[in-house]
Amino acid sequence: MKGFPYLLFAVVALTGVLLYMAHASGYFDDEASPIFGIKIPPGYRDWRLISVAHEEGNLNDLRALLGNDVAIKACREGKLPFPDGTIIARLAWSYVPSEENNKVFGRSQSFVAGSATNVQFMVKDSKKYAATGGWGFAQFKDGKPDPDAALKTCFPCHEPAKTRDFVFTHYAP
Amino acid sequence: MKGFPYLLFAVVALTGVLLYMAHASGYFDDEASPIFGIKIPPGYRDWRLISVAHEEGNLNDLRALLGNDVAIKACREGKLPFPDGTIIARLAWSYVPSEENNKVFGRSQSFVAGSATNVQFMVKDSKKYAATGGWGFAQFKDGKPDPDAALKTCFPCHEPAKTRDFVFTHYAP
Repeated sequence: MKGFPYLLFAVVALTGVLLYMAHASGYFDDEASPIFGIKIPPGYRDWRLISVAHEEGNLNDLRALLGNDVAIKACREGKLPFPDGTIIARLAWSYVPSEENNKVFGRSQSFVAGSATNVQFMVKDSKKYAATGGWGFAQFKDGKPDPDAALKTCFPCHEPAKTRDFVFTHYAP
Repeated sequence: MKGFPYLLFAVVALTGVLLYMAHASGYFDDEASPIFGIKIPPGYRDWRLISVAHEEGNLNDLRALLGNDVAIKACREGKLPFPDGTIIARLAWSYVPSEENNKVFGRSQSFVAGSATNVQFMVKDSKKYAATGGWGFAQFKDGKPDPDAALKTCFPCHEPAKTRDFVFTHYAP
């Protein structure tokens, strides 16, 4: 029993290290979004660009649409509907006037991306999400999924784009 | 000499095929930009996103900044100056109100990317471009480089961003 305290210490220390690693790697942030059960796809910030946009009004953001490889291939080939496995990410940032850019231009004309507002995903799975046009929807703020209420309007709002497989964004050349 | 006409035909046909392939692959569009001698970097449309912006005034565009691997690594590590081999691409599209998006929102608030205006590149080579802060500048419209005059203002305009290695854009999280 002489070595027991050391063993106990080693187990406690190891548990601490594992918990720290799990936390640092975002393991505990890996929460699924309600209704559609979508998690943040790993590496989405590295995906290729589909297009950009600006929304005024309450949203007041600058946004970028990124696509995984399946999405980009489909966009470039112009084939509809998007195949299963397509994921489209919509990143958005607050719409901020750039004082330093405006100084260079000599007038107030430049708006840049401020802090991130939220991130949305559309995930194509024609069987799993058959009731919503084959698409699952998710929205995350600071890595945390937004509640049900935020997702209930996704499909009804996307329905007018039915002839384009419910995707509003056009690929920017 | 009996086979000669066939050989001639084969050579002419092959030449035609090669010319067609060269044209289709954009070989003849591969013109270098003046002053800094920069060509369009192959595959830049696949690069990862640095940030997005909107310019009003004469530019009236939506823009995306993409970076090659060297650029993205430097942006994410927040290290300055950017290392040699960095290339930053600035894509821009006309700023177009989206009637179909506005219908869904029930008001005029949505602006999307229209047709491409031009593409600019900043290429870091601290020796080759020592006279302009280590950066070479280029601008292309429909794959063709813009003339000298368009490039003479690049460096003077970027000089106010000297403390950030002449790059205005901040990486968007």
